[in-house]
Amino acid sequence: MDIQAVNGMSYEEFLDVFGNIIEKCPLITAAVWSNRPFSSINEMEKCVYEFIDSLPSSGKEGILRCHPDLAGRELTSGSLTIESQQEQRQAGLTTLTSGERETLVRLNSQYKTKFGFPFVICAKMSDKYKIMEEMRSRLQNDPLQELLKGTEEVKKICHLRVQELSKGVLLPTKL
Amino acid sequence: MDIQAVNGMSYEEFLDVFGNIIEKCPLITAAVWSNRPFSSINEMEKCVYEFIDSLPSSGKEGILRCHPDLAGRELTSGSLTIESQQEQRQAGLTTLTSGERETLVRLNSQYKTKFGFPFVICAKMSDKYKIMEEMRSRLQNDPLQELLKGTEEVKKICHLRVQELSKGVLLPTKL
Repeated sequence: MDIQAVNGMSYEEFLDVFGNIIEKCPLITAAVWSNRPFSSINEMEKCVYEFIDSLPSSGKEGILRCHPDLAGRELTSGSLTIESQQEQRQAGLTTLTSGERETLVRLNSQYKTKFGFPFVICAKMSDKYKIMEEMRSRLQNDPLQELLKGTEEVKKICHLRVQELSKGVLLPTKL
Repeated sequence: MDIQAVNGMSYEEFLDVFGNIIEKCPLITAAVWSNRPFSSINEMEKCVYEFIDSLPSSGKEGILRCHPDLAGRELTSGSLTIESQQEQRQAGLTTLTSGERETLVRLNSQYKTKFGFPFVICAKMSDKYKIMEEMRSRLQNDPLQELLKGTEEVKKICHLRVQELSKGVLLPTKL
């Protein structure tokens, strides 16, 4: 997929392809369509990141809250988006021992109680051991640090999703 | 549902109930959870409207683009959210003659070409005749007028959804 093809898309087509590059936030994709034409896929991504950065803290917290828990209820019930399912599987979160699952659920519960949003990490760049280590370590941060850290992870997830979508190796979730 | 019950909700519960008060924009609901405790349901709504107003034009356009076409492909394919389906049915859009449907599709297509977002109207406060009249009239507006008008309609839709959800007469779409 080249940038000419992207620039030629109606907003419906753009949303069909890129609607879930930020988990369950098609609003962001739909907003960024206003910035066409893009000189490159990278510039399109940059517009997404700038939109996120322009939001007040509550908006960034809102983005994090649209993300599923790692190894949480959506994974168990099969209601994850296609993208999240693939990411959690790749990080080994679908083949946890029951002890590992318990640990992850407990740490995430502590995290949500402390910060009011879920622990977000680019699972594809990690594995279950690193994720648990990171959770323990990030639990010690203060809320502002974690809001920034979580937002950076959202951008990494977005980058990988855009890469795979533009290579045609990811079938997007239709929201 | 009283405001104490709302203030006591985790962000997951809050999203489960109010996630679709702005069509397909759970980000907004999730952001507004940061403003708890609310003194009333009205104040909660006010936070939603303030969040929307704080967005740049591209963000407001993004919200409009998350809305389905009236009598469009989502209605035909049965993929509307529960809320939109009910609203379009109540406005008589599920029982159009083929001539009426053609007119509506043509007008909306002209509207989207001119403005880059779909025609949004609080269908529950209208009917199919008024909707077609409004479409013809609003097609004459300039883009900024329509962005403001569309955004006002989004707020009216939100108000009715919140009312019905807090009375328990609307089963929310889980996003």
